[in-house]
Amino acid sequence: MQIGSSGAGVAARRRPPAQRTDYRWFRSIELRWNDVDAFGHVNNAQFYEFFDTTVVRFLSESCDVTGPERLSMVVAENGCRFLREVLFTDVLEMGLRVERIGSSSVRYGLAVFANGAVEASAQGHFVHVFIDPARKRPTPMVPQVRAHLSTISLL
Amino acid sequence: MQIGSSGAGVAARRRPPAQRTDYRWFRSIELRWNDVDAFGHVNNAQFYEFFDTTVVRFLSESCDVTGPERLSMVVAENGCRFLREVLFTDVLEMGLRVERIGSSSVRYGLAVFANGAVEASAQGHFVHVFIDPARKRPTPMVPQVRAHLSTISLL
Amino acid sequence: MQIGSSGAGVAARRRPPAQRTDYRWFRSIELRWNDVDAFGHVNNAQFYEFFDTTVVRFLSESCDVTGPERLSMVVAENGCRFLREVLFTDVLEMGLRVERIGSSSVRYGLAVFANGAVEASAQGHFVHVFIDPARKRPTPMVPQVRAHLSTISLL
Amino acid sequence: MQIGSSGAGVAARRRPPAQRTDYRWFRSIELRWNDVDAFGHVNNAQFYEFFDTTVVRFLSESCDVTGPERLSMVVAENGCRFLREVLFTDVLEMGLRVERIGSSSVRYGLAVFANGAVEASAQGHFVHVFIDPARKRPTPMVPQVRAHLSTISLL
Repeated sequence: MQIGSSGAGVAARRRPPAQRTDYRWFRSIELRWNDVDAFGHVNNAQFYEFFDTTVVRFLSESCDVTGPERLSMVVAENGCRFLREVLFTDVLEMGLRVERIGSSSVRYGLAVFANGAVEASAQGHFVHVFIDPARKRPTPMVPQVRAHLSTISLL
Repeated sequence: MQIGSSGAGVAARRRPPAQRTDYRWFRSIELRWNDVDAFGHVNNAQFYEFFDTTVVRFLSESCDVTGPERLSMVVAENGCRFLREVLFTDVLEMGLRVERIGSSSVRYGLAVFANGAVEASAQGHFVHVFIDPARKRPTPMVPQVRAHLSTISLL
Repeated sequence: MQIGSSGAGVAARRRPPAQRTDYRWFRSIELRWNDVDAFGHVNNAQFYEFFDTTVVRFLSESCDVTGPERLSMVVAENGCRFLREVLFTDVLEMGLRVERIGSSSVRYGLAVFANGAVEASAQGHFVHVFIDPARKRPTPMVPQVRAHLSTISLL
Repeated sequence: MQIGSSGAGVAARRRPPAQRTDYRWFRSIELRWNDVDAFGHVNNAQFYEFFDTTVVRFLSESCDVTGPERLSMVVAENGCRFLREVLFTDVLEMGLRVERIGSSSVRYGLAVFANGAVEASAQGHFVHVFIDPARKRPTPMVPQVRAHLSTISLL
């Protein structure tokens, strides 16, 4: 379903959908039966599981995300625009890019592409703040993380 | 954990946290054990389950959301800022308000208040577009819905 | 929906449903919008979130489940029979009992009661093994846990 | 972690773990970041999402599971034994087999294999009852479903 022409006064939705070429790293996401809600399409909250998982999978290519020396980070902010509904039978690919790198934070852009489409079905952003797990305060990201993030930066 | 002072260059986080008095309708949300992720706090994606559930619970006070004549709507956009981490043992209350009503859409504001706090632990927005389920196109909301939404409108 | 008379050859379903009086401790569970799947009822996997949460809530009455000295346990086995479908608008109460206490393990019985019904909509079991978190091996449960579990034991 | 030798008096756990050769159909399952709970391993409830998804993916190879003429079924019963903990970084494969076919029901056996292991990390069962969606009563499964199920039957 295309809802971009709803005239609903939601200016953000008037921007054209993101394109596959706007992203730098891709990974498939497999849908689960209970991702689908009573409306018969993938529920909005599930897209944030896809975002979270995609970001952690990217970080895990170069950094420890689960072991004793793992990275610690919190999500400071995220958001998503839903452009077309996604069904259980759709085959999904996530696109990822880095939109901004600060000293202790990074803003990612993410998009969901269904069935090989060039235009996104959903697109959003996600801000990670790296923290010192003992003090639970923002801490500068380590050089290895910064270097890895830079490989998919827009700039 | 307070992460608002991270200096991370994310301007949105510099706004002061929402207050309880900014919202018009409240409902408790009970945490589940697996809302908590490997970092020991409630995962970001779960907040969107809280948002979705809160909005539907509010609508169900006046409208049919599950029966044969139920409302059909899609989420066009949502987003959340996470201000303080939430733990399994926290007692949560959701605040809801209507920020804008269009002909076929509505923008809600939502916030999570933990343990009776005046300031939000997380705050966000959520845009519903009412649709004609047969044609899957935006359709004007029915008067009963509009009237119910107006009861918690900011304006 | 009553499926107990299906004649499907699944002998286990022929046992009469559990009654409210078969349980020793009760707690409400609030449904979320995306607990419901494409069939319009609460998905089977969600019941295990209810089981897990109910057991941890019970343990947390007397024991630390989230702090630095928290209990460590793993689920060794669980199972559920689904007797009546559960809808988003249903009001649920969980019943809990302890069916067997070993040296390092406990078997719980659980049931879901909808809308004040005497008969269960679903009923199941759940086995916890307490472990030494460093060695990840079963360890005898501490006396405080054993005493707390005994308060809801069938024996 | 191996918990099968816990001596906890849970007889079911003494059976040897299922082997890869005990199953007839395989499909990968990709873990998500919030499948992991506060204990740092995949939460027990998530395994039932894997079971449900695996069964529906198998059925969808031959039958309509999402369209207007889709199959309707309910889960009558399921259960799982957890033999080794599963971590976010594990690569999972699900094994599926049909253990019994009745007139309107089918019992599946399922197992989770991690990182190419021959022995299961978790194994369980899952009973589907096919229903008439209008009357919500058990109904004989259609021949196409029966034939498809028979391709992975143990008998």
